[in-house]
Amino acid sequence: MAMRNIKLTISYDGLNYSGWQNQPGKNTIQGMLQQALGELTGTFIKINGASRTDAGVSALGQVANFLINSPIPAKNFVKALNDRLPRDIVVTGSVEVDKDFEASSSAKCKLYRYTIFTGKNPNVLKTRNCWHWPGSLDIAAMETAAKMLLGKKDFKSFAAAADKRESSVRTMMRCDVIQEDKWVYIDTEADRFLYNMVRNIVGTLVEVGRGKWKPEKMNEILEAKDRTAAGPIAPAAGLCLMWIKY
Amino acid sequence: MAMRNIKLTISYDGLNYSGWQNQPGKNTIQGMLQQALGELTGTFIKINGASRTDAGVSALGQVANFLINSPIPAKNFVKALNDRLPRDIVVTGSVEVDKDFEASSSAKCKLYRYTIFTGKNPNVLKTRNCWHWPGSLDIAAMETAAKMLLGKKDFKSFAAAADKRESSVRTMMRCDVIQEDKWVYIDTEADRFLYNMVRNIVGTLVEVGRGKWKPEKMNEILEAKDRTAAGPIAPAAGLCLMWIKY
Repeated sequence: MAMRNIKLTISYDGLNYSGWQNQPGKNTIQGMLQQALGELTGTFIKINGASRTDAGVSALGQVANFLINSPIPAKNFVKALNDRLPRDIVVTGSVEVDKDFEASSSAKCKLYRYTIFTGKNPNVLKTRNCWHWPGSLDIAAMETAAKMLLGKKDFKSFAAAADKRESSVRTMMRCDVIQEDKWVYIDTEADRFLYNMVRNIVGTLVEVGRGKWKPEKMNEILEAKDRTAAGPIAPAAGLCLMWIKY
Repeated sequence: MAMRNIKLTISYDGLNYSGWQNQPGKNTIQGMLQQALGELTGTFIKINGASRTDAGVSALGQVANFLINSPIPAKNFVKALNDRLPRDIVVTGSVEVDKDFEASSSAKCKLYRYTIFTGKNPNVLKTRNCWHWPGSLDIAAMETAAKMLLGKKDFKSFAAAADKRESSVRTMMRCDVIQEDKWVYIDTEADRFLYNMVRNIVGTLVEVGRGKWKPEKMNEILEAKDRTAAGPIAPAAGLCLMWIKY
């Protein structure tokens, strides 16, 4: 029979893993999924993820696809894989898609949410996947700075030095700073993201929020096109890939 | 100088630990705290916990005390210990108490909350510390059964077979079944608890909630004074020690 293309939607708590991408001797999300699929089918099948989330980064809507020569109904992969996965990786959807669908290159836009907890005392059961920042943040100033990132811009100042892709121009459709009680959420939606881009943006917004920089500094940082112009990188634990649109 | 008695309030995510009580070669909460206190003071000091929570059980309000011969102000232990503890164990309070205070025997009552998630799909970031029960539960029936446990009763049917204490009579002041959206919380407050008592009560209430048993069965179970009369034990992950009163 012909090869079928299966699209998975996956959620995971990233804190116990060395990121999405398979690495020898490391505990990775891709590795765990490929192992589960291998146990299920008896063959090695590569699973291609849409986003190579870093060590400690979580996801509620990661997407991946794989090619398989099997009559298993697509929706059956949800339970079959979850039965073979640890509790902190959960497949939430599985559908058959066109042959030309590729989780990474077919993506139109993604939303990452970054979570900051500003309360004094962390709650061990609720503040696991966040950045604990026990102090006040000027949300209005952060929101002003965040809006300067909207549109088609060169985000080179927010790209990890290791990033080797040719262009650092991306289109950001959303950069909201939302406060709810002691929680601050930074929602960023863009067509694609540079390596470490969200965490570098969040680290910079917190410099604005704590009053070290004026919001207008964000424009200077964009113009500098230099990683050293921006703020420090925010911790991985606060980052979560919420969804990907195709 | 004279020995001082320090009372700590401690929170922890129990999922990564083999319970409160120190055991050779195991990762325990008591062990981590004693190690942190040892690093801080340069001497071994035993920390006495109020409740020996099991492997996988969490706490937001565990209490412990220790004797120390040092002029360190009591409140300073909060930061000093947290700086030496992993992220999932957090000391939230530290005060000096009378010489005769003992975290375990001085306790007047405790509240344990058990959390059940009834949604179909678990959320890896929110359903970590709970029992995932993807089905409907008759909350009114559970509440009726729960109320039969109130007062001074012999809870022998809910004690682990391994429990060797003489009397299994306890006074339960509260046993509430609370539903919020897809979450069900079972709050139990008693003077003391038998080993595995809350998890055995929860397992029994779920048998009532899913319609296997009528609520009135709870009285029969109490009268049987036999562990095999009650329902199965509920998973450790859903249990949390909320507070202890003195």
